[in-house]
Amino acid sequence: MSPFNNQKDINVPITISHMVRLIATLGTSPGGIFESYKNLINGTYEEDNPEKIRVDEVYVIRTADKSVEFAWKLVKAIFVCCGGRDVAIYDIPLSITDIYSRKDYLLFKKEVENKIREGDFVDITGGRKSMAAAAALSAMRKRAKTITTIIPQPEYNRIQKEIEGLKSREAEIESAGDGRCEGISVCSLVSKSALTIMLT
Amino acid sequence: MSPFNNQKDINVPITISHMVRLIATLGTSPGGIFESYKNLINGTYEEDNPEKIRVDEVYVIRTADKSVEFAWKLVKAIFVCCGGRDVAIYDIPLSITDIYSRKDYLLFKKEVENKIREGDFVDITGGRKSMAAAAALSAMRKRAKTITTIIPQPEYNRIQKEIEGLKSREAEIESAGDGRCEGISVCSLVSKSALTIMLT
Repeated sequence: MSPFNNQKDINVPITISHMVRLIATLGTSPGGIFESYKNLINGTYEEDNPEKIRVDEVYVIRTADKSVEFAWKLVKAIFVCCGGRDVAIYDIPLSITDIYSRKDYLLFKKEVENKIREGDFVDITGGRKSMAAAAALSAMRKRAKTITTIIPQPEYNRIQKEIEGLKSREAEIESAGDGRCEGISVCSLVSKSALTIMLT
Repeated sequence: MSPFNNQKDINVPITISHMVRLIATLGTSPGGIFESYKNLINGTYEEDNPEKIRVDEVYVIRTADKSVEFAWKLVKAIFVCCGGRDVAIYDIPLSITDIYSRKDYLLFKKEVENKIREGDFVDITGGRKSMAAAAALSAMRKRAKTITTIIPQPEYNRIQKEIEGLKSREAEIESAGDGRCEGISVCSLVSKSALTIMLT
C-alpha cells in the first residue's frame, strides 16, 4: 500500500471522522475510477441532491493478475498526470488472480468490506460482476454509497484500443505514475462523456 | 409474461409459501441462467451447506434491446430443448434498452425488487454491472439469496462464437422455444464446466 502523493497532509488539517474515501474495484481496464473521482469532487453525478464531495483518499482494490496490475499503473498515471494530484491514491492488490470459486469471492468480499467505512463512496465500475456485487453488498452493510460510471460504448472501445497500444510502454507509464508525465500521453484514456450515477 | 410449460401445475400440489423462484438478469448472452438452474436443482453449487433446491419458476428480467431479446429466445430454447421443461419460465422485458442514467437504473431496480420474495434465488450473471448491483442489493433487502455462475473464459468465447452463427436462424430458435427442437442444436451453448457460487 503506497501513497504517491500526500502533500495535503502538510497543508490541510485533517479531521479523521470526516475523511471521505473512494473505494474502487479494478479490472483489466482503468475505466471509470478517475471519471468517478472528478464527478464526485465537481458534484457532477446523478443523485437526488448531488453536492461537491471532498474526496481525501482513493483505494483501488484489485487482483494480482498481470493485466489488472497494468490497469493499476494506468490509473495511477492518469491521476498524477491528468488532474488528480491532490488526492492520495492507494493500491490494494490481493493474492488471488481472479474469482474462480466461492473461496476467492469470500476473500475479495472480506478485503473490500474491511476497507469501507460509513459515508465512503464505493465505485463498482471495474472488475468482475461478482466483485461489483461484493462491493455493493458491503457498502450497503457499512452505510456507504455505491456509485458506477457509465462510459458510452464507442468511447469505451476507443479507449480499449488505445490501452492495447500502450502495453509495450509499461516503463514509461510507471514513470508517469511517479510524476514524469512528459514522455507519454495517458489523458486521452479519460472519457469526457462519462456519467456517474448513485446506485443506493 | 408467458409460461411455456406449466404442466407441473396439473400433477404436483403447490404450496404457495414454499414456491422457490430463480430471478435472473439477462444481457446479450444467455450465459449462465440454465447452468445456474441445473446447479441449484442438483445441489451442485458452492455454499457452506449446499442442498438440492426445487426451483418452481424462473423469471428473466431484461431490457427491450434487440440483441437482449435474441438472448432471451436462446434461453427459452435451451430450457425447452436441453432438460429444463419441468420449470415454468417467464420473460420480463422492461421498456428501457439499456441503463444510460440513474432514472433507468431506478426503473430496473424497482422491477427486480418487486419480483423478489424472501427465499428466492437471484442470479446476477447476465446483463450490466449496474443491473447486477441492483439485483444483489434488492436480494439482500428481501432476504433472498444471490448467486452467480462462472464460465471459464475459453468456454465462454466458444459459446459467444456459436451465438454469432445462430443470429441468422432466429425463426428456428423461436420454434425450438415452442418445443420443436429437431431443427436446431442449442444445447452446445450450455457450459459443462460452469460453477455456481452463493454470494451472500
